[in-house]
Amino acid sequence: MIARFIYGDRVFNGNVEGDRISSNGVSYELRAVRLLPPSVPTKVVCVGLNYLEHARELRMEIPEEPIIFLKPPSAVVGHDDEIILPEMSKRVDYEGELAVVISKRCRGISADEADDYILGYTCFNDVTARDLQQKDGQWTRSKSFDTFAPFGPWVAQMSVEDAEDLNISTRVNGETRQRSKTSDLIFGIAELLEFVSSIMTLEPGDVIATGTPPGVGRLESGDIVEVEIEGIGVLRNRAVSSTPA
Amino acid sequence: MIARFIYGDRVFNGNVEGDRISSNGVSYELRAVRLLPPSVPTKVVCVGLNYLEHARELRMEIPEEPIIFLKPPSAVVGHDDEIILPEMSKRVDYEGELAVVISKRCRGISADEADDYILGYTCFNDVTARDLQQKDGQWTRSKSFDTFAPFGPWVAQMSVEDAEDLNISTRVNGETRQRSKTSDLIFGIAELLEFVSSIMTLEPGDVIATGTPPGVGRLESGDIVEVEIEGIGVLRNRAVSSTPA
Repeated sequence: MIARFIYGDRVFNGNVEGDRISSNGVSYELRAVRLLPPSVPTKVVCVGLNYLEHARELRMEIPEEPIIFLKPPSAVVGHDDEIILPEMSKRVDYEGELAVVISKRCRGISADEADDYILGYTCFNDVTARDLQQKDGQWTRSKSFDTFAPFGPWVAQMSVEDAEDLNISTRVNGETRQRSKTSDLIFGIAELLEFVSSIMTLEPGDVIATGTPPGVGRLESGDIVEVEIEGIGVLRNRAVSSTPA
Repeated sequence: MIARFIYGDRVFNGNVEGDRISSNGVSYELRAVRLLPPSVPTKVVCVGLNYLEHARELRMEIPEEPIIFLKPPSAVVGHDDEIILPEMSKRVDYEGELAVVISKRCRGISADEADDYILGYTCFNDVTARDLQQKDGQWTRSKSFDTFAPFGPWVAQMSVEDAEDLNISTRVNGETRQRSKTSDLIFGIAELLEFVSSIMTLEPGDVIATGTPPGVGRLESGDIVEVEIEGIGVLRNRAVSSTPA
């Protein structure tokens, strides 16, 4: 597993095996380091309505082509970081997702080349201020608040084929709220990479979040939200109010 | 005027006066250097429907709060760079706009502090694949193609008050298509900065494009589009087909 972490005051790229993380020949206890978001994206491209049952629960139509939107790099946080619930919203939702991390600059690639440009896969939480999403029509504000793009805890390397056959689930305070398989994606991973790279040049570390399965719901201050994906791991974050009680 | 440029194979920050540009005590002829986008944004935040008559021409409602969307850094180009018309769209429009360039990291600032966080102002072309904008509902794809965020040629320093009283016009092949005043902005510059910074942390070099006046229209391969703003200058780009004729 590919990770980034801080030990002391320095940033390292590391490799996770079991409960240890190693970097440049030195091995650390995983619990003794602070994990960072596993890449530094220049952009975070998200895909909307990419599971049939999620589109239905939002009463939205299934799109003919992927619907994309962007989150700013300022929204990125990592494993164990807090999700800050903004005062501006009365309803913030979790959305657990599988995300792709790009390995090499690419533009206009075809689906069958996708594996060559993917570093690996990680867990992503497309945190969304549902009330503002509905109010604005455009989704950007509701999905762009600082801390609204947690991803991690690390990047797992596997083929597109394997990544399209994983169990994905989201828990809030230990209770399962989303449970699906990445095989239910409407637009598959390779197809998404072809689509997005036909629009914009992708850079190493860029993230493509593939959309959320059904079961989205509200986060309240103090909630612990976990996105778990088979073969990757668990991304855990705590929601906190932006205003002290 | 604050500019970035290449001379030889090196990148410089420079200061433009008349037909000369200086950097670190050395002065160059402006026509001998290649201007770059005047900042390196981590994000480009755009505001939709911020002139009454433009909202009317698109038959869209005037929003109660600013409607924002993002363009990825991969869409950024500078003065004299080409706008590449993607095969995927049959109708690409220019949208001339005044843009703000951020000077210092900020979050949650109030409107009356805006001047302290603004480096200056530049011309921006919010290039838009109108057909895809209408098809998707969400605006991101239509506005995120590589080369769809030209800005420049440089950054002019002035107060918010002065920046809200400028003539702005867009010409295609020398013919005026948009002509307005920044005093017609529905949400003013300071208000936009307060709004955007209440959502996301802004970084030095980040760009906020303030919305386009009425008169948007189509670009065809070979067209020269110019966005001119009083007190700033002229941003000029040529539209070219992505497929050779």
